[in-house]
Amino acid sequence: MKNITRFGVSIDTPLIRRFDQWMSRSGYTNRSEAIRDLIRARLVEEDIQSPVTDGLGVLSLVYDHHQRELEEKLTDLQHKHHRVIIASTHVHVDHDNCLEVVLLKGKVGLLQTVAKELGSFKGVKHSKFVLTSTTKHL
Amino acid sequence: MKNITRFGVSIDTPLIRRFDQWMSRSGYTNRSEAIRDLIRARLVEEDIQSPVTDGLGVLSLVYDHHQRELEEKLTDLQHKHHRVIIASTHVHVDHDNCLEVVLLKGKVGLLQTVAKELGSFKGVKHSKFVLTSTTKHL
Amino acid sequence: MKNITRFGVSIDTPLIRRFDQWMSRSGYTNRSEAIRDLIRARLVEEDIQSPVTDGLGVLSLVYDHHQRELEEKLTDLQHKHHRVIIASTHVHVDHDNCLEVVLLKGKVGLLQTVAKELGSFKGVKHSKFVLTSTTKHL
Amino acid sequence: MKNITRFGVSIDTPLIRRFDQWMSRSGYTNRSEAIRDLIRARLVEEDIQSPVTDGLGVLSLVYDHHQRELEEKLTDLQHKHHRVIIASTHVHVDHDNCLEVVLLKGKVGLLQTVAKELGSFKGVKHSKFVLTSTTKHL
Repeated sequence: MKNITRFGVSIDTPLIRRFDQWMSRSGYTNRSEAIRDLIRARLVEEDIQSPVTDGLGVLSLVYDHHQRELEEKLTDLQHKHHRVIIASTHVHVDHDNCLEVVLLKGKVGLLQTVAKELGSFKGVKHSKFVLTSTTKHL
Repeated sequence: MKNITRFGVSIDTPLIRRFDQWMSRSGYTNRSEAIRDLIRARLVEEDIQSPVTDGLGVLSLVYDHHQRELEEKLTDLQHKHHRVIIASTHVHVDHDNCLEVVLLKGKVGLLQTVAKELGSFKGVKHSKFVLTSTTKHL
Repeated sequence: MKNITRFGVSIDTPLIRRFDQWMSRSGYTNRSEAIRDLIRARLVEEDIQSPVTDGLGVLSLVYDHHQRELEEKLTDLQHKHHRVIIASTHVHVDHDNCLEVVLLKGKVGLLQTVAKELGSFKGVKHSKFVLTSTTKHL
Repeated sequence: MKNITRFGVSIDTPLIRRFDQWMSRSGYTNRSEAIRDLIRARLVEEDIQSPVTDGLGVLSLVYDHHQRELEEKLTDLQHKHHRVIIASTHVHVDHDNCLEVVLLKGKVGLLQTVAKELGSFKGVKHSKFVLTSTTKHL
């Protein structure tokens, strides 16, 4: 059985009304769930400031597959870092562009280094990296 | 008298413990206050997506005051937009650098345009712009 | 043959030295490549402000798989939006947590709506969404 | 006389055309200036990751002035931190709301702590904090 804490919250009525509207636009059906998500998001933001936090990373790379050496280099580097790279998914976006999404797991500081290395290869047009923490009880 | 809504919230105990620690590190003394701030921040984020929202803007410009024409241009442009520019504060940072903080009030879309214009002047080394909304009941 | 424009750039020497150091830390081997990436990143940021831009989205969801109805709901919703959802990859993070990475392609505005819907399901602990544009010539 | 480095850059023609359009929308008149700003922005982003970087901070607080103790507390705390707080500007936004913009100068890590403390006072509705570095040669 899960351990739940119940407590009361007091919020200005006009503010909570606006929040209820936001919740319904966002697909939430109860306030506890929505507030829990706000809390988690804030704690995760703080967590991932520390390089030794255990985290998950998702790196999205857009590149032109005609730059063939690039694919090999990306694959090589991913193998070199196989301890933190779990998997990658490849999408053929259009005639020229590929999207490669690389999933990483490990210490946040290391994940950031690997993501930077992959994202700065010649031929990678655009890269974005997001991190979340896997700290217990989050 | 202020109109307050009281309601109950259920959160996993380990999560709320971590939140309590974050609260105390951040200087909050009660959960309602902290949750209210999370809610406001989220609603403001959404609000300022719309260019017609009433907002406040704070534009921070760092520039080298030796580039003298710049000061005149910045002043001219601020006067041109006097309807949305409330005030500006000037700080002499070091031998070379100035910080000018410009406060703006008006429709979010217009504030963004003015901030872009001021921030891209030759000689402005760095500019940052933050927006908040002044929507009623926030 | 690719159409390339060559042009000269003048930058303060101390600044370009610091940039060279950043480049080498980031794995770049020439300035054109690094500058091209800065330019692309800036243009993409602007592009994805418009909801009708063609884009790619990567949605990362962390959830507890014990909340079993959630998996079905996530799958149902992904099928409902099969026109914009290309693929999803599932990772078993630890005893409790799953990472599901959903790849989306379509108009940026629609992708944001779908990502919001998926991210606010009861049981999703944390979600992050990144967008990039697939505008021609980027 | 300023020390300038000139060098050549090669960029795909369609990409540089889009950049030229962005430049003109943003008020830039030459590519060197625009590229210099992209470079500076990137270096500043990296700089302010380190808590010992010398920086400037601009903290924007929105609060209800009817919560009178708040003004005193804010003033007290600003005096307590007078070594890093340079100045503050106060704006009477509307019947209820005030905007207080606090300018800070010092080690980035300390500025963040002070900003957090000021931003979490009961009655502060919304706070935003931006940092820039004052590292030499930026």
